[in-house]
This record gives sequence, structure tokens and C-alpha cells, in this order.
Amino acid sequence: MQVFDGALLQFLLANKLTELVFQGEFGLEKENLRVDEEGRLALTPHPDELGHKLKNPYITTDFSESQVEMVTPVCGSIEEAYDFLNNLDGIIALALKGEYLWPQSNPPVLPKEEEIPVADFGPEGSEQTAYRKNLAVKYGKKKQLFSGIHYNFSFSEQLLRKLQQKFAPEEPFLEFKNRIYLRVAKNYLQYRWLLIYLTGASPVVHRTFSSDLTGLCRRADSESCYCPRLSSVRNSKYGYKNTEDYLVSYDSIESYIADIQALIDAGKIQDAREFYCPVRLKTGRKAGTLNHLKDEGVRYVELRIFDLNPFAKCGITLDDLYLIHLFIVYSLLKPDFDFTGKRQKIANLNHNLASVAGMHERALIFTVDGRLTSFRREALSVLDELGELVARLGYKKEYLTGIVAAARDKITNPENTYAAKVVKAVKESGYVGFHMQKAREYLALSRAAEAKLLGYEDLELSTQILIKSAIKRGIYFTVLDRKDNFLRLSDGKKTEYVKQATKTSLDTYSTVLVMENKVVTKEILKEHGFRVPRGEVYYSAEDAIKAYDRYRGGGIVVKPKSTNYGLGITIFKTDFSAGEYGQAVEFAFRYDDTVLVEEFVSGKEYRFLVLGGEVAAVIHRVPANVTGDGKKTIRELVAEKNADPRRGRGHKTPLEKISLGETEKNFLAAQGKSFSYIPAPGETVFLRENSNISTGGDSIDYTDLVHESYKEYVKRAVRSIGAVITGVDVIIDDVTKPHSDNCTIIELNFNPAIHMHCFPYKGKKRRIGDKILDLLFGPR
Amino acid sequence: MQVFDGALLQFLLANKLTELVFQGEFGLEKENLRVDEEGRLALTPHPDELGHKLKNPYITTDFSESQVEMVTPVCGSIEEAYDFLNNLDGIIALALKGEYLWPQSNPPVLPKEEEIPVADFGPEGSEQTAYRKNLAVKYGKKKQLFSGIHYNFSFSEQLLRKLQQKFAPEEPFLEFKNRIYLRVAKNYLQYRWLLIYLTGASPVVHRTFSSDLTGLCRRADSESCYCPRLSSVRNSKYGYKNTEDYLVSYDSIESYIADIQALIDAGKIQDAREFYCPVRLKTGRKAGTLNHLKDEGVRYVELRIFDLNPFAKCGITLDDLYLIHLFIVYSLLKPDFDFTGKRQKIANLNHNLASVAGMHERALIFTVDGRLTSFRREALSVLDELGELVARLGYKKEYLTGIVAAARDKITNPENTYAAKVVKAVKESGYVGFHMQKAREYLALSRAAEAKLLGYEDLELSTQILIKSAIKRGIYFTVLDRKDNFLRLSDGKKTEYVKQATKTSLDTYSTVLVMENKVVTKEILKEHGFRVPRGEVYYSAEDAIKAYDRYRGGGIVVKPKSTNYGLGITIFKTDFSAGEYGQAVEFAFRYDDTVLVEEFVSGKEYRFLVLGGEVAAVIHRVPANVTGDGKKTIRELVAEKNADPRRGRGHKTPLEKISLGETEKNFLAAQGKSFSYIPAPGETVFLRENSNISTGGDSIDYTDLVHESYKEYVKRAVRSIGAVITGVDVIIDDVTKPHSDNCTIIELNFNPAIHMHCFPYKGKKRRIGDKILDLLFGPR
Repeated sequence: MQVFDGALLQFLLANKLTELVFQGEFGLEKENLRVDEEGRLALTPHPDELGHKLKNPYITTDFSESQVEMVTPVCGSIEEAYDFLNNLDGIIALALKGEYLWPQSNPPVLPKEEEIPVADFGPEGSEQTAYRKNLAVKYGKKKQLFSGIHYNFSFSEQLLRKLQQKFAPEEPFLEFKNRIYLRVAKNYLQYRWLLIYLTGASPVVHRTFSSDLTGLCRRADSESCYCPRLSSVRNSKYGYKNTEDYLVSYDSIESYIADIQALIDAGKIQDAREFYCPVRLKTGRKAGTLNHLKDEGVRYVELRIFDLNPFAKCGITLDDLYLIHLFIVYSLLKPDFDFTGKRQKIANLNHNLASVAGMHERALIFTVDGRLTSFRREALSVLDELGELVARLGYKKEYLTGIVAAARDKITNPENTYAAKVVKAVKESGYVGFHMQKAREYLALSRAAEAKLLGYEDLELSTQILIKSAIKRGIYFTVLDRKDNFLRLSDGKKTEYVKQATKTSLDTYSTVLVMENKVVTKEILKEHGFRVPRGEVYYSAEDAIKAYDRYRGGGIVVKPKSTNYGLGITIFKTDFSAGEYGQAVEFAFRYDDTVLVEEFVSGKEYRFLVLGGEVAAVIHRVPANVTGDGKKTIRELVAEKNADPRRGRGHKTPLEKISLGETEKNFLAAQGKSFSYIPAPGETVFLRENSNISTGGDSIDYTDLVHESYKEYVKRAVRSIGAVITGVDVIIDDVTKPHSDNCTIIELNFNPAIHMHCFPYKGKKRRIGDKILDLLFGPR
Repeated sequence: MQVFDGALLQFLLANKLTELVFQGEFGLEKENLRVDEEGRLALTPHPDELGHKLKNPYITTDFSESQVEMVTPVCGSIEEAYDFLNNLDGIIALALKGEYLWPQSNPPVLPKEEEIPVADFGPEGSEQTAYRKNLAVKYGKKKQLFSGIHYNFSFSEQLLRKLQQKFAPEEPFLEFKNRIYLRVAKNYLQYRWLLIYLTGASPVVHRTFSSDLTGLCRRADSESCYCPRLSSVRNSKYGYKNTEDYLVSYDSIESYIADIQALIDAGKIQDAREFYCPVRLKTGRKAGTLNHLKDEGVRYVELRIFDLNPFAKCGITLDDLYLIHLFIVYSLLKPDFDFTGKRQKIANLNHNLASVAGMHERALIFTVDGRLTSFRREALSVLDELGELVARLGYKKEYLTGIVAAARDKITNPENTYAAKVVKAVKESGYVGFHMQKAREYLALSRAAEAKLLGYEDLELSTQILIKSAIKRGIYFTVLDRKDNFLRLSDGKKTEYVKQATKTSLDTYSTVLVMENKVVTKEILKEHGFRVPRGEVYYSAEDAIKAYDRYRGGGIVVKPKSTNYGLGITIFKTDFSAGEYGQAVEFAFRYDDTVLVEEFVSGKEYRFLVLGGEVAAVIHRVPANVTGDGKKTIRELVAEKNADPRRGRGHKTPLEKISLGETEKNFLAAQGKSFSYIPAPGETVFLRENSNISTGGDSIDYTDLVHESYKEYVKRAVRSIGAVITGVDVIIDDVTKPHSDNCTIIELNFNPAIHMHCFPYKGKKRRIGDKILDLLFGPR
């Protein structure tokens, strides 16, 4: 027998399709049980914050109310799917209150069978609830708690078209495609035992799980029972399987469908969902039926045998995802064959053998034609073929060769398998002890990565935050334009377009234009009785310079009409010469053809973020600064402060790095200092006049510290402009004292960044992404 | 007696306040009767298009339904008020259908007394209607039809404050200000006879007006009667006056108010409005009462003696406005005095003498202390004083000296007065003939100036158009930022902010952002099944250039993601070389960091202007072009075409001038032509590829020529984006044939200019300003 389908391999090589054969679409699903501090199954309801189980496309529950299921969207690459799964894992972990994601496929400490909560889908999901109740009766609730990872894959349409044109030009494309996926399914089923061995990570069960398993467990302590030669209880006959191994035809999609239908008709399973085959042929639909499969054909395969890997934060490693992918390509390139009942039975036997006995020194396995042989020899032989495939296709050769080598190592050294490592760790720390230690470690990692959305780090942090909130709540999102931070959000009923997190449909265009024009904003605020800096507008430097006499003697601010990030602004806190004034005017006119000269208002500046008529957050911004220790120079102190991972460039991190540029140099020079100056211990040195976060300023949350009267004042000011989302810059002497006339409104920002409120330098984090979604889609 | 108040004059000169004394606020009101083609009083209702009589702050009716009254807002200068009056006059003239504005204070051909329609203010204005019905009974309807101009003026607050500080530091400011205006009123009343003579222009009445006047009229023909020594019937005892000359005290505002109140209490007048004094002391309120005057003091004076000048399009010349202004300043600087009953009677006698007999060779007039003297001598003596004032104050010296000289000429040469000229013209052309000739001439001037709003020519034409519509309909407007074309509009209930005519509150910010981003717009349109050009997005020139093979062989368009006015775009209608393609890509990347390469779609391009779900207008834009005569060069033909007053620069005219720049030169070179090429008779030569109006293209209205099916298609596309105001660029093969799949949407513009639809190069003008207001404020 041929190792590979020679014609196919030849065609791929000849037409340089070796890269294309690895391309396709990827999706991952993962279940985790929620547990309390002691590793006991959480009996609380699925958190409200995670949206509606039936409607959230990313987060739902599986069998049990405590069984969170995460679902990535269809992704263009393995990395993308992996990142997304990590994001989901982090978002959910951080949404739990005093609970953890159990990082093991086998259940945690369980209550009595009857206390295990079956997922409640409410009145809209009564069919879903009823289905689960039937399963509970048929299989027992405990077995339903096994959790794992599903791996979804489809080949690129382009590849399939090319193959069809070459090998079956007369055949309808749909039929050809079905045939390809059936072939992949067959080879995959035949060789799956190897993947079970390599990815199995559920060798230990807690005593509360079952006494039935004791026969399997050679060793036991007071807490759990385990077996050193066991890879995966979940995949074994003790795992979650149909009551018997049903055989169906893989000859054609029609016979496949007919056989499953026969099982349903015979009352053996409720519907196709209950056919727990290690691979499923799926349509593109969320709730695709056998009829859809018949009409629309196979859209992708779902591989269902992967345990949660407790050593990986998100339950699976990137290398294993590549290994599985390679295995799919292998399943395509292995020759097609007749998957007879006998062969299926052999494959099923092997499935169980790999689960329960693969690690035994003298473990056996059946060859495809039914001879018993050495597990290790047979495994290494398959791995040889995988290695040969990698060599011939040449795609990511070194990387994939490494992965094959690692797999070989797990065959020859079973102690390097996940399962063996789990047993070792459980022996050292206990079943609950080990897994809770991992659960806590992963929660800490999720916390540390809170200000990041993997795979979306090129977007502004404010947009990343909004996407995270959308995922959590189950708002479907699409990034329409990455450079523009342009999102489409949809809850299935309503579609919203959002740019840079706060440019939304909530504000009318004219309201934004009013805010964009500082002159107009001031005019309206003044008319409505709000205090704004007095000042004049100039259309030429000449006119502005002529007016020097009007301003001399006091503090002033000279600024372009439409400034961004403090560009072009000069502040004179006290008196200034005609020359200085002239320079400031010329400087401002470099940024705009209209310039404002305003009185300088002393006091501290606060940013009030107003959302839908409410003050959602207040921060005080402090200009870029360092505090001395008597030893380090300003240059060194800046480098130290910039090392904080929260500081970056371009609004992609909570804070920005402090620059050591011309502006900072001049500002220090005015204080008689340079970058080499060594501040005394505790001495704070400012490097800029302006307090923008974008120029290295610090953000300090004041939301709960600001006297209510200022919030009322600001809210009224915002109402007079009619804005729904706005950032109001206000100068206040002392925010703790009630408002008198000591409060001046500097400007309204139509595109306020939200990241500085979500991740302030100091003070409480505010959940602004959630609030924006509440405004766009109504409260949850 | 002193000629001037020496202390005051000295103070002004010493403190360089001579310019400030001329500053202040100006307002004009003008009435015109509407007439039909034959000069008969129009019996039609006040046009709907001019909004609600009670609510329109700019346009209303006076006594009669046929008597349009125009009211300028408070203006900062004479020129501004004059321009605004001209605008109002033009707007109204163009809103009349087959009717004209009667350019004479004396009525046109009148129907029977009972047929003259009294203004009907509807249920909301029943008090207004009742007041007029009482007047009709008391004075007769015909006299109520005299029309004229009111001149409103207030001194600058700054001047009044300075005068108070100097001359009455202890006196409350309000009292001081009242005293100043009373003094101005007294001097004005005392010398008003001179202004009546100089501005009088109503010496002739039509026979249908009255038989009572015949005693006055020395000459008469079958149509009218007139008198060569008569200046103003309207101001004479035959004009519209109280039934007797009521004398009131001018000693203080309290005694002034008390005396008017006594007249009301005695039933002699209905209320203060009916006290027809040649000057009124007014509060700032629209319907100020005597109580308001007491509490708030005088805000401005209203001078009421000015006839419509049939020789000026808007009823008064700029020179006369300056003359009157000078007269007010004169009234301030003449010493204060006790305006006794005797003196008031003398002033009233002089008022009538100037109206009915001023032009007589031996006309007499009373001196202020009651001696009869030569009209001419006394008039020249007052003019001498005015001349002296001009000389001493030095403000606009030459200009005002010229105006005083012109006034002297009218004294010494009465045939140069308006009145004498009217008599002459009526003799030549008849009363109706002369005035209708003027009415027609002025309508033609209004038509010619339709694409202009005087005093606002620095704004974009689209904004000028919107303001015109607002004025017409009575939406109060403020230009908040001229450079930004930023308007505030208010109907009293609702305030709207509008930038550049089409940036409004009607669209949400996110809808605008979708339209602004060509990639996102295309994506959404495509998803909704609309035909858009196929293409790809590139973020680097390198990637775009690599894709050459994908595009070669067909026509393509290379363009920056966010283009304006066709900048950075290259079009290849057929095949192109790798070099040409590379250049086009580099060129586009100069304008944006994202570039689109799209298929070139052939056909004609149309701009559909969609407003509130309806297609308001469609134009076809033709690239800049000239058509030859076999003699002139392209350069000459362009100069000729650019001479059209409709062509200008910077969107301030209906069309833009064609440039002879690099782009045009290269485009011609590609056709083997230069600017010196002489096109054959009838040969049309294009100077650009792109058809934007901003680069000299021609706009041709197609609104009624486009097959309905395209309008439906475009409307549906706009709905899918959710835009309320948008300009949709569409390529269509043949707009007269029903829509099939021959229609491609190129882009949606969130800020479509409206001027090209209102004033197309060819085809019907569309009233887009009105439609935008309908959307913003609801239909009239």
C-alpha cells in the first residue's frame, strides 16, 4: 500500500500548492468548569456579565450551568484562533467573582449528582434545557461534566477548487468537497489513537467523581485515583461516550446521513448532536441539521478528542494546534480507503487502548488491518510518515519537524507526556491542590494581560477595550478597518459602527462639529452661563500680535483653534514679553489658520468622561514627571519609569513613554536643569507643561473623590451642547470643596480616549467599554 | 447760542473718540406693496414660501396683507444693514409669482376701499388682526398703504459709558442713556424737515388713491396727480399721521411715558404703537410696551420719515443711510434744550412745509424760535453746520463731505431731488409705467444676483444658499464661524448647528465616518447586494506594486482611501505598463497611507443628491472643457469661459474657473495638444480626466431625465448605509433606460455641495436650501 496518495502529492508539488494545502479556516471551542476557592464545582448561575447564553456567539454554557464554553470565531490562521481562545479565557476568568476556571478535563470536587446544576437556558431555550435533562437521565450528570477542546478546520476553497478541476472535473463541486472531507474523517479516525496519546491529559479523577473507575485506577490516595499508564479518562470507555460505539457509513455523505438518521429513528440518540463521534462533519450553520448537511454539504470538520492541558493557560499549546493541523493534512494525503465496519471497530479499540494503556512499556495497538503490534513501534512509524510529509511539503519545515520530534520523544519517553506530568504533579500537590495552583496562576496571568487583546495589539487600546467588552457580552464584532480602528458591532438585531471606541451613532454629526470647533463650543457654553476662559479669536498673526497690550500683565494661553494632543499651545502663567508673545502666536499659527488667545486659568485640570448624561469617570492628569532618589539622573529616572509595561507608544498601552525631546529639554532648561540633573530624594521634576497622557503624563482616577456638585455642573454643560459621549476638560481649584465659581470649562472632546480611565496610572479602574455598549445596545 | 455742545465735542476730540461716536448698531425696516403686472395692488395672500408672518423675524406684513415688511437684524455697520436689506429685497422679489415689489411709498393702482385686504395673522395673531381692523376704520385703509423705511440706531455702549463717566459720574447709567437718546430725539425732531426734503420721493399719487388730494395737486393727468414743489405726500398732512399732532414731554423718560399713557387713557390712540411720531424711543424687545421702556430704558431710536426711493433697488441709497447717520451724530452734538410745546409745534409745521412746499423757489421755513425765513437759506445753514461737524470730527471726512455737498446741491437745485425726478419720470412714462419699469428692472437685478448673498460672499456658496432659504422662511441664523461656514439656525423652538450646509444633526457621527471611509462604504454596499467596483486595499506601495499582474490588461482606478476633489487619483481606462502603474501607486500614497486599486467602470458619472430618503437632484458632471470656433486657442477659449460671472474660486460661485496648470497641460499633451492648439469649430476638448466641479467641470441637471429605477436603486443603497444627507456618485451607461446591472456606485459623499444643483451650468435650478430646512425643521 502506498504511504501517500502519490497523484495528489505530485499535483501539489508540481503546482506549488504546498503552502495552500496548509491554509484554511480555524476555530476552537473549549469548555471549563467553574470552581470555587476550594476546587468545588460552582453552583452559582452563569455570570450575567457574560451576556445571554443563547445569544453570545463567543461565550455560552455546555451541559452544566457551571460549564463555560468558549467559541472562537472562524479565523484565518492557527495563531489567530489561539490568540482569540486566550482572550476568551482571560475575559471569562476576570469576569468570575471569587471563582476559577478548572484547568482539567476531569471534573473537580463534585456535589451529589442531584445538586449538579444543568444549564438553564430560560424560556427562550426550553428545547436546549430539555435536551440536557434527557442526557442527564441517560448518561448521568457527572459524565457530562468532562470538558475538552474542539478543533474546527476547513481547507481553503481555492485548494478544493483546484483539486476538483484536476481530479474530478465532471463532479459537482459540492460532492467532491464532501468526498474530500469524508476521506479526511476516515484517515483521522483510523489514526486518532496517536493524537489521543499525545494530547491526553486526564489521567486522574477525584473520588467524588465516581467509584466505578476504581477498577481502572491502580493507585489511589484519599483524594483521587489515577493510573500511570493512562492518558485520558475522558477519551476512555469511562469517559463521555455513546452507550455503544455506533458504526456509520463513510462511503458517501448520503449513506453517512442515512445511518445517523437510522440511529435517531431507532431511538438510540435524540438527534445528530448526540452522535458522539471523535470527528463531526459540519455545515456552516450554528444549528445545522442532517438536512442542512445534505443540501449544503460539509463546510468543515470538528475534531473532538482533545483534553484540556493543565500546563497551558488556555488548555492547549500552540505546538499541539500545529500538530493537529499537520495530522489533518496527513489525513488528506493518506490514500482513500473503504472504512469497513471491521476497520471502524479496530479504530475504536485503538482509541480506547491509547486512552487507557498507551503509556505502558509493553503497550499494544492494532495495525489498520487488525494485527496486534507494539504501540510504540506503530506510533513511531506514523510519526515517520508525518515527518516525511513535512519534509516533502516543505511548509514551515523546521518548526513542524521540531513538533514531530517532540511527539517522538513522548512516545519513547512516556514520562514526558502531559498525562504523566499530571500524575506527577498530583502526587506532589494533590488533585485539587495542583489544579487550583494552576487555576490561580492562570488568573494572575489573565490579570496581568488585562490591558491587551491578543491579535489586536495594532489597534488603539481604547478599541481593544471596547472589543473585549463586546466579546464578554456577546456582541458580534468585525474590524472593518484596522488602521482606522473601525468596528462593526451587532447583537443580531441592531448594527452599530464605531470608530476609535467613542465615535459612534450616539452623537449627531453637528454635535461633533460643535465640539471640534473650540470657538463655537466656548460661545455656546458662555451663552448658557458656563464659565469658560475669556479670550479672542485671531485669523492672522499680525492681528494677534497687535493685541499684545490687551493681554500683557496676566497669564495667557495661546493655542490653535483645532488642537490635538496639545500641539501648538503656549502657556504663560504670569507676565510675558512682546517677543515671547509674538513667538507663541507664530507657533500656534503653524498649526491652524485660526488662533485663540485666552486668559490662563490656574488650578488643576480634570477630565470628566460623560457618557449618556452621566459622569462615567474623572481623572486628573499630571504632566510627564519623575521623582528623584538622590542618585539617578533625570535621564535614568525616565528610562526606569518608561520600563513599566503599561507605557508604550501610539495609544496602544495605558500610558505613553516619556520622551526626552526638544520640548522636554527646553522645559527643563527653563528650570535650570538638564537630563543629567540628579533630583533629590522625593523631589518631583516635571518634564512638560501640558498634562496629556499622550506626552507621557500620568492619569490618576478621581471619580469618587470629586465633589458631586462639579459632576452636576459638567453634566449641565454637556447637555447645553447636546453631546452623548464627550470628555470635558475642567480646571478646578479644589475638587473636594463644593462648586462655587471656581470651575472653568476648557474644552469638550468629541473623541475621548477611554483607556486612561480603564487603566489609570493610579486609582480605580473603570469599566468604560461596558458602559459604551450599554449606551449603544441598551443595558444587559 | 452755541452751534455745538463744546464740552462734549472737546471731550471726543481730546480722547480720540471721534471714530467711536460713529460706531453703533444699525437696523433697517422697509415696506413694499405687492402688485401685479399692471401695477394693481395684489389681492393674493402673503406667499407661503416666506414663512409665518408672526414668526419670521426678517419678513412679515404690515397693515395690509399685500404690504410686505422686511426687517434686517441688528447690524454692526451701515454697509451690513444695507446689504442685508438688499438681500431681503431680492429674496422676496424672487419668491413672488408673477408679482412685483412696488418701488414707491405712495400706493399703486388700488381697488375699492373695501377690497383692500387687511393682513390676516390667523388664530395665533388675532390681536394683530384686530388692531389693524381698528386702524382701518379710524384712518381709512388707503392711508395705511403708505410705505417707507425705518432707520434704527443705537450708539456703542462703550461710548455711552465713557460719556457718563465724564459728564454724569453720579447718575445711574440707565438714566444717563435715556437722557442722551431724548436729546438726540429732540434735535432730530427739530431739524427733521431738512431730511424730509432731502429724502422725500413721493410727490405723485394715483387717481385711485384719493380725490381729497386734488387740492394739493397743481397738475394732473388721466392717471395721477402731482405737484412740482411737493417732496413727500406720505410725510405731509395728507399722509399717514395721527388725527392731530399730539405733543408729549421730552424732559424725562418718565414724563414722556406719562404723556403717551395719557393719550391712551383718553382713548385717542389704542396703544403706544399708534403714536405716529417721526422718532420712536425703543426698548430691545420685539413688542416692547411703555412699562418695558420705563424698566429697561431706551435701547435705540427708530427714525420713521424716509420715503421709498424709486431710483434705488432696495428703496434707499447707501449715501442717504450715511447722511441720516451723520444727522444722528449732529443731533447728539447739538446742545440740549427745552423742547417746549411751542417748539414742537414749530417743528411740526416745518415738517409739513418741507413735505409739501420745500421745492418752491420762495419756500419758507420757521427758525427754531419761530421766525419765518427762507427755506433754502435755513437749509444751507444747517448743512454748513453738518459740514463743520464732518470737518472737526474727521471721520470718513472726504466721503461725508461729498454727501453734504450733494445735499447742498439738492437745496440749490431742487430739480435734483428724488421728488423732482419722480415727477419728471412720471410725466414721461406715466405713474404706473415708470414705477413698473423700475419694478421689472429691480426684479431682473435680483435674478442676476440670485447666486449671491451680499455681505456673506466669503462663505461657500452652499452656505449662502442655505442662509437665503433660512431668511426666506424666517429661520433665525447666526454665523458662528465664518471660516468654517458654521451656522446656528433656530425657529424659536429648536436650534440646529450646520457646517458647510450639509453637515447637520440629521446624520449620526458614525454614518458620516462610514461614508468618509471608502473601504468601509464599499464593504457595506457589497454586503447589501449593491454593485461597487471590485478592488483591493493596500497599506504599502510595495504590496500594491507587487499586485500588478492581478490588474494588468484591464482598466483600473488607483486612489487614496480618503480623497477630496479627486486628488491623488489616476485612471487607466485601458491597459497600462508596470511603470505607469507604479507611478500611479506612488502618487496615490502621497495623499494617504492606504490606497485602493479598483476596476475602471465605464459609463457616465452622475451625482445623486439624496435628502431624507428622497432623490432631491441629479447632475451629470462633465470634466473641464472648451468647444472650439476654429479661431481661438484653448488658452483663449478657457479665458472666455472663465469670464462667465458664474465661475470663481473656492466654492463661492456656482462653477469654478478652469485652470491652465500642470495637470491640464499633461492631459492635453497626452492628446497631442497644447494650450496653443486651436480646436475646430464645434470640437470639444477636455482639459482633465476627473469631472469635479471644483476643477472647472460643468454641471448639467438630470433630475427629471434619469429613469426612476436608478433613483430607487440609489435610495435603497443610501438606506443600507443609513445616511440622511448624502451625494451618491454613480456610473450609468444610459440613464434613460431602466436599471439592469449597468449601474455601479462609486462612493457616498457625506458633505455634498448643494450649489451645483441650485445653479447648474445647464438645466433646471433646484431649491436644495429649502429642502434641507424642511428636513431640519419640518415642512413649512
